[in-house]
Amino acid sequence: MIKIIVGTNRQNSVSKQIAEIVQKILLEKGAESEILELIDLPSDFIETALYENNGKNEAYNAFHERVASGKKFIFIVPEYNGSFPGILKTFIDGMTYPNTFRNKKAAMIGISSGVGGGGIALSHLTDIFHYLGMHVLALKPKLAKIEQNMSDNLLTNKLYIELLHSQADMLLEF
Amino acid sequence: MIKIIVGTNRQNSVSKQIAEIVQKILLEKGAESEILELIDLPSDFIETALYENNGKNEAYNAFHERVASGKKFIFIVPEYNGSFPGILKTFIDGMTYPNTFRNKKAAMIGISSGVGGGGIALSHLTDIFHYLGMHVLALKPKLAKIEQNMSDNLLTNKLYIELLHSQADMLLEF
Amino acid sequence: MIKIIVGTNRQNSVSKQIAEIVQKILLEKGAESEILELIDLPSDFIETALYENNGKNEAYNAFHERVASGKKFIFIVPEYNGSFPGILKTFIDGMTYPNTFRNKKAAMIGISSGVGGGGIALSHLTDIFHYLGMHVLALKPKLAKIEQNMSDNLLTNKLYIELLHSQADMLLEF
Amino acid sequence: MIKIIVGTNRQNSVSKQIAEIVQKILLEKGAESEILELIDLPSDFIETALYENNGKNEAYNAFHERVASGKKFIFIVPEYNGSFPGILKTFIDGMTYPNTFRNKKAAMIGISSGVGGGGIALSHLTDIFHYLGMHVLALKPKLAKIEQNMSDNLLTNKLYIELLHSQADMLLEF
Repeated sequence: MIKIIVGTNRQNSVSKQIAEIVQKILLEKGAESEILELIDLPSDFIETALYENNGKNEAYNAFHERVASGKKFIFIVPEYNGSFPGILKTFIDGMTYPNTFRNKKAAMIGISSGVGGGGIALSHLTDIFHYLGMHVLALKPKLAKIEQNMSDNLLTNKLYIELLHSQADMLLEF
Repeated sequence: MIKIIVGTNRQNSVSKQIAEIVQKILLEKGAESEILELIDLPSDFIETALYENNGKNEAYNAFHERVASGKKFIFIVPEYNGSFPGILKTFIDGMTYPNTFRNKKAAMIGISSGVGGGGIALSHLTDIFHYLGMHVLALKPKLAKIEQNMSDNLLTNKLYIELLHSQADMLLEF
Repeated sequence: MIKIIVGTNRQNSVSKQIAEIVQKILLEKGAESEILELIDLPSDFIETALYENNGKNEAYNAFHERVASGKKFIFIVPEYNGSFPGILKTFIDGMTYPNTFRNKKAAMIGISSGVGGGGIALSHLTDIFHYLGMHVLALKPKLAKIEQNMSDNLLTNKLYIELLHSQADMLLEF
Repeated sequence: MIKIIVGTNRQNSVSKQIAEIVQKILLEKGAESEILELIDLPSDFIETALYENNGKNEAYNAFHERVASGKKFIFIVPEYNGSFPGILKTFIDGMTYPNTFRNKKAAMIGISSGVGGGGIALSHLTDIFHYLGMHVLALKPKLAKIEQNMSDNLLTNKLYIELLHSQADMLLEF
């Protein structure tokens, strides 16, 4: 069961749409997956689930457990202000210690409205996952100018589609 | 009026103590400053102040305005999970656009319990500030093993104290 | 006298063409500059000018002195294998210690044939310059798909031209 | 046959000593390895083996072939000027395209005289290897203050020794 993490808490995000596309690709390859959205985190978890309150917010804990039970992950990472969304790191800062990512495996997909495709965001996130002991798949598709490459919730850019298929194949073998 | 940003929302943080040390150093040099703590952000701002709700949370707006009115900043950045605290980036993700950091000037101080001193955290944050158009002072003290180098809320490591003085001098001229 | 560093030793490089464009822009603004090309480094300097041979290669020393005499720099940085050209860092590894970049000021321009514009390369180089104590201008134009945006040695992309002008103005005041 | 790459061309480097320690550790675990030293690159390869001369220097080609024939690598990476040695990236810039690192696996060990342990260097190198499609082991030991933790060419720091053993075990299974 691959966990697909929507890396933002924005409503109706493009990242969610990409997550669903990735889920279909995985299903075509016979792999089950579950989409987890940061928007489902409790709205006050920055106060009730971090640091001295670590482990005390049941809603955070339930979400955390759904993440922590995974072995392989795909993170959908939109570029916000030149890096990943702060909410994604804030969620990580609330994870139990020793962290539950150790020796697990992650793939990442970068998304941007502009030309960057989230390259710097993925580099930062790789540093963090390596620090936590999670292996990261080398292939990290960078889906730049995403709005211009989607229509009706589907990707229209063939290269992007191929990259997502290649990444899915690699993650299944990783 | 230099703004000193405590880059975590943890209670009774070492970062806050360092902020106060930095404030005293600045005062010795004749420079006024204001300490701003992320712990003062509203506890639900991840839902009520970001994206489509940008600008709608008065408490967030008031904090944002105190930050935005600054010209020079010193960020105290503890290392959490191999990078900066997620809450710091989440605050940035709620700032108005075009962002109010453009053409301003930032200094950074890294803190860690371990040996790293937050070097990677400061590198990531530099990428973000450069993306936002804020200049970053080259000298970024990395205060590693911070608990072993403090006593009674004071730094006991002479090199660390010298670095903070040098940085303050440089920021005043930057 | 601003030093414009062509960050590759490739012959007839696009980076050299960009350097000449930048030089003209600076001249329009009344600023003199000198173009320095890494291709002018002695071909065996990796053996004769590094480490225990530091300072022993007169040709390297002469080039080094022309760089070291600068106060402000513009680095033209093509993306090679996902970062800056190795030769640029190798040159830096041969510089005298304590390094002559300390407290100086650098601007950077990224170039790529692909879509990235050298964003990661500029991030890496910023880390290095900050380590060496050199301040880096926040605005770092990323000239992606460079071949498609040039004709007859001139930039045809208006945004790129505007960015180079803005950067030049900012460097002159930095 | 694991390839251990000494990531500097400095003579009598500490990196070489670490490479030999790593080789012994691998041998204890029944794994054969070969140490490859960048100091064996031809002294003029920056002119005779890069770009339009790619593939034309037989000595470079022979070294390149010994690297390229590997499936798993351990890179010993000393920190020079806040990142990896330029010579290592310059060697990579001479590799044939499409590069021969794709879908292979790398482990990295950082070394520094100072406190950093080469953390930033390893982050930069990870970006490059990921760009080239090579997977990187999450565990990257950072051997800080290396001179104080060695005696008679042996590591005296037990934690460092344990980290190298753990990394070797992980690489063999990676």
